Parts: sequence; structure tokens; C-alpha cells
Amino acid sequence: MENFIAHNPTSLHFGKGVIETIGKTVQPLGKKVLLVYGKGSVKRSGLYDRIISQLNQAGAIVFEYDGIQPNPLVEDVDKAAAIGRENGVDYILAVGGGSVIDSAKIISIAIPVDHSAWKFYEYKAKPVKAIPLVAVLTLAATGTEMNPFAVLQNPETGRKDGYGSPLCFPVHSFLDPEVTYTVPADYTAYGIADLIAHCFENYFGKGDSSLSDRFITAIIADAMEWGPKLMQNLHGYNERAAIMYDATMALNMMTGYGKSGGDWGVHGMGHILSLLHGVPHGASLSILFPAWMKLLKERAANQISKLGSELFGNADVESTIARFEEFFTLIGSPVRLSQVGIGEDKFEEIIRVMIRNKAEGSHYKLSEADYHLIMEYAK
Amino acid sequence: MENFIAHNPTSLHFGKGVIETIGKTVQPLGKKVLLVYGKGSVKRSGLYDRIISQLNQAGAIVFEYDGIQPNPLVEDVDKAAAIGRENGVDYILAVGGGSVIDSAKIISIAIPVDHSAWKFYEYKAKPVKAIPLVAVLTLAATGTEMNPFAVLQNPETGRKDGYGSPLCFPVHSFLDPEVTYTVPADYTAYGIADLIAHCFENYFGKGDSSLSDRFITAIIADAMEWGPKLMQNLHGYNERAAIMYDATMALNMMTGYGKSGGDWGVHGMGHILSLLHGVPHGASLSILFPAWMKLLKERAANQISKLGSELFGNADVESTIARFEEFFTLIGSPVRLSQVGIGEDKFEEIIRVMIRNKAEGSHYKLSEADYHLIMEYAK
Repeated sequence: MENFIAHNPTSLHFGKGVIETIGKTVQPLGKKVLLVYGKGSVKRSGLYDRIISQLNQAGAIVFEYDGIQPNPLVEDVDKAAAIGRENGVDYILAVGGGSVIDSAKIISIAIPVDHSAWKFYEYKAKPVKAIPLVAVLTLAATGTEMNPFAVLQNPETGRKDGYGSPLCFPVHSFLDPEVTYTVPADYTAYGIADLIAHCFENYFGKGDSSLSDRFITAIIADAMEWGPKLMQNLHGYNERAAIMYDATMALNMMTGYGKSGGDWGVHGMGHILSLLHGVPHGASLSILFPAWMKLLKERAANQISKLGSELFGNADVESTIARFEEFFTLIGSPVRLSQVGIGEDKFEEIIRVMIRNKAEGSHYKLSEADYHLIMEYAK
Repeated sequence: MENFIAHNPTSLHFGKGVIETIGKTVQPLGKKVLLVYGKGSVKRSGLYDRIISQLNQAGAIVFEYDGIQPNPLVEDVDKAAAIGRENGVDYILAVGGGSVIDSAKIISIAIPVDHSAWKFYEYKAKPVKAIPLVAVLTLAATGTEMNPFAVLQNPETGRKDGYGSPLCFPVHSFLDPEVTYTVPADYTAYGIADLIAHCFENYFGKGDSSLSDRFITAIIADAMEWGPKLMQNLHGYNERAAIMYDATMALNMMTGYGKSGGDWGVHGMGHILSLLHGVPHGASLSILFPAWMKLLKERAANQISKLGSELFGNADVESTIARFEEFFTLIGSPVRLSQVGIGEDKFEEIIRVMIRNKAEGSHYKLSEADYHLIMEYAK
């Protein structure tokens, strides 16, 4: 077991009706708030009005930025940070899924500085402080609500990268499973694929921590129990709640304690599919993870069959991979590139960008030949 | 799944050599420290000298209280709080096991007030603030290092009770598995019994949270894997580390999220055996838990056999209880009252105090007849 420091300062407010407790929770943070959200769904669902009502109760002065894209751009982060900086906001309230909350994390460290947030991603600047961030989650998937990580795209540099700082934990996160009732079936499935992929990344990481591996198996088993039930019943409270909690625990750092880092190669590759072809993040992972396991069926044979045996009873490498493919298919997340319209004619460019972006992972580092094989298995 | 707020502010510093990072960690907390510990072992093991060296590095002015007993007394808490109050200490450094750290938690909220700490336990006073607490753990067992709970005895009122306040989380806890090498075999085993009992209490609590139950099973399975290995190799780093981490996770609140409270009946009864007959806490639990399960083998049949099936494959109620008894026996923790010298002539008094102290639990509330049956099963 490796040394570690476990510290997660986020207060997670989970359950039915927690939106109605936002006002009293944010009041001590100050008067001026920067409300950050994406286009459309937050207003359509009525959540926006409920949030404004809470902010009114708290006597807040509200500044807004509503331009966050599904694959969030550093340009929007810089624009939103400028609004926060000019108006001297006391805190940020981010309402949305991973893209909005990730953006808000970087806005929170960009407000106190006078340069583009991309400098953090290039390690040309270090954040010195953060404006407190409160998050309201509308999509169970990335785990951003209880971790310090944020993924952004920069079309100018052709990159989609992750960044993390202890300053970036939300102070409070509000998770009401009812808020996710309106997430359509496809994005519900992609969220389940994403949370399971987070478990895989830490499972296939370096170092031994038997309890962390057991927690990972626990989360995957829970998602594989509740995922199909949820797909049958998108307005089921217990189903939405289970998957929402699974997604938080899958990437709130707990599954990595005692290990020396996850692999994250599949996430790196998945980001390239999103960047070049707009593939939803979770969909890219349900395509690439089984293919990655096929590539590594000898190098990672023990880990794959141990995971399969713990989840499915006595399972070998082949049957474990097959079970995961069946599961992703069952919930409606794709397992082949052809299902998202990516033909073999695109492979060369995709692989070139994967190499340039170093999407190689850390434990099972991928060579150029490996990328070709993964694309072949995934085609 | 029930609503919950998950928030754990403790920074857990885990691993080989973390003691040597105490100085730089405590320095920002101030100059004056109240060093709290028990009799003997901390000095014998050399840990005391290492701590003092760290405090010297931090330029600390050290006040000491070394009188904490294995079953900690409110009298010592009041005396230590008086020293802290008179000297205006900035923080507390507690070095020891559950008794020392529990005492220090209550000292931290007693320093700012002018009454006995027992008033908190009687709910006649509410803590208003706490002096920051830093803990150095020397025994893997209670989980106190990452939770807000503290158990104290008050011989005057004849009670041993638990108390909790969000103010009582340690700010930092230092867990070096090597520090626990000198814990003798019997107390090592009692610690394992204690951590498994914490898992049981939350498992048999009210409410449904499938992921929390899966985390519980994960921790029990880990402790049942590593416990016997540790008993064969008391100086094994991996063994000590696994059990130490298991104990932290077994009671850092995570196993209860989404449920509406653990049972804690067996803990309540166990405290009476400690209070009246000095039975070590963990030993009281390995005796009483199988007996409690035998009493509840019909009322809790589904829960017991589900737990057994998850841990041991297809298991019924009887075989599950038998497996736990075998495990406790294997590691050297007692499973009968006769093994700790408590004969049937003591039962009446023990049951009388159990009734008076309301050791009945919350989910499966115990009647007077139930106490008699449990003692009979445990005799």
C-alpha cells in the first residue's frame, strides 16, 4: 500500500428536495454570486427558477454566464471569469453537469488572476486562491461534484485536457436525484458508462490497495445492478439515486487511496474522439474500454480476470470483456466506433492526435501500434 | 435511499514515516500545544520522543496531560481541559488509541467552556467551538481518527456513553502502520473485532443504501482476508496497513450514507461489559455480536443470510453466524463470556445496567427478555 493523504472538503447534500436548502447554505458566503450554466435545459426544466428563488431568499446579487458548451471551452471560462472579476463576486453557483461544474472550477481559480485559464493547463501558472464554488448537479456521470478535477477543450491548441488543484473542490454540492429525471435515455446510459470507466481507470492503476480495489468492485457491481433498472424506469427515484451516488463515489478519490495513480489511458483516448468527432464522453469510454482490455488481455490478464471473478463469479479474461460489452449494449451505450459514425478512414487522424496528446495512460503505457490495435478492436 | 449530507473535514496522513511530517503540518496551528496521551506505551515505544522532536521543529510550547485511562474517564477530560484553558493552548495533539483521541475530542470542546464535559453527554450543554485537534493513532480499531464521535465513562453516574459533534473531527490524523507493530496480539485481535463490529452496526441499521452495504461488505471481506495474516505476522507492514485502513473506513461515516442510522445495540451492551468487568471493547463485541445474531436469526434472517452469502458464497443464517465465530476465534478474540471470566452469577447485574443505560439499539430494539437470551447465547 502506498502512502497517501486523504482529504475531501466538499459537503455533499444528497437527496430529494435538497435544492430548497441552497438559499440558507449559500447565505454565509456573501452577497454577489456568479451563476454559471449551459444552454437551455436548466431553464426548460424549471430548475433555473428554483435556483433564482433560493438566491433571492439569500438576498443575493446575481451575475450570470450561460454560455458553457457540452464539451467545455477555455474561451467560455475566460469570459465568465472576466465577469466574476469585474463584479467582485463572492462565490460561484454552477448549475449543470460535468461541463458546467468543471468550467466553474477553473473560473473559480481564474477570477483572482489576470491571464487566460489555459495557463493552468500548460503549467505556466499556479492558482493561488479560489472563489468558493457551490455546485448543483444535473447529470450523474463525471463525479466532478466531489473532486478537484476539471476537463477543458482548447480548439486553438487542439487539446482536451484534465487539470486538478486542491483549491478546486466545490465547497458544497447539491445532488437531488429528481433533478436528473429529465436526462434522456442516451445521456443516462453514457453517465453510467462514464462512472464505470472511472472505476476501471483506478482499478487498472499502479500499486496495491486491496480495500480500494474492493470499493471499486462495489461501485461497479452497484451500477451494474441499478443501471438496467434505471434504463427501464427513467423516473424511478431509487434508480436515479443509486446511480447518482455511484457516480460520485466512483471519482471522489476514495477508490485511489493506497494506490499510486490510475491508468487514465482510455479517458485520454476518449477525449480525442470527443474533440475530433463530438462523441459524448461516456459513449467514447464504452467503445474504447472493451477494446483496450482486448489489447491488454495478456499484459493485464490477472487484473481483468480477478475483476471479472469478483463481479461475475469465476470468469476468465474473454468472458469478462464480453460481459462488459453486453452490459454497455444492454443500457444503450455504444461499443463500436461504427455505432457513432466513425469509419476506418478517420483512424489515421485520430491516432495522430492521440499520439500528440499523449493519451497513452500511465500503468499500461500505449505504443503507436497499440493505438492501431485498439481502434481495430473498436471499429 | 435516505437523504444525507456527507462531509468529512479530516486530513488523513497515512503511511510509513508520516510521523516525520507532523512538525510542518502543525506549525500553522499556533505555538501552544496540549499534548495528550495515556500511561506508558507511548514513552516505551519511543514515539513520544519522535513527537517531541517534531514539536520542537515546529517551535511549539508544550503542555502535557498523560493521565488518560484505557476506558477513558470524564474526570481526566476535565483535568486536561483545565490545563488547556489556563494556558490558552492553540491546538491539541493526541497520541494514542481510541481512548486518548476520544478524550482529546471532548477536551477540545471543553476548553472553551467552564463546566464539566459530562454536560455535553447529558445534553445539558452544547459545544460552541473547538480547539483544533491533531491525532496520532497508535492502535487500529475504533475509527476515531476520522469521525466526530467520542466514548467516555463516568463512574459517578455509572455510565459509558458515546457523544458526537461536527466540531469533534480531528483536523489532521497521522496513521503510520509501523507505529502499531508493538500492539500485542490480543489487542490487535480486539481491534479487528471492533472494526468488523462497526461494519455490522451500520449493516444492520435502518434504511436501504445498496452501495453503503456493498462498502460494508468490502471492508469486512478485507479485514477477514488480512486479519489472520496479521496475527501470523505482527510486524508485517502490508498486514498492519490493510487493517489500519480498514478500521478507519469502517467508521468514518461513509458506510452509513443513505441509511437512517446504525443499530449500535451490541456496542451499547459491550460498553456495559467494559464498565462493570473491564472487558476490552473489541473483545466485548466479538462475544456479543454472534449472540445478538442468534437472538435475531428470525427477525433479521434476510439481512444475516444476505451478508453471509456476499462474504462466503451461498450461506444461511446458521452458517453465517458460525463463520463469524470461527473467524473471531481464529484471530484470538473471545466469543464467550466464560473466556473473559464472566460467570452466570454476574448476569443479573449486567442486564440491570444494560436496561438502565438503554443499550437496546435502534433498529432491532431489545427487550428485557432479549438481553437474557443474548447473555444465555454468549455464556
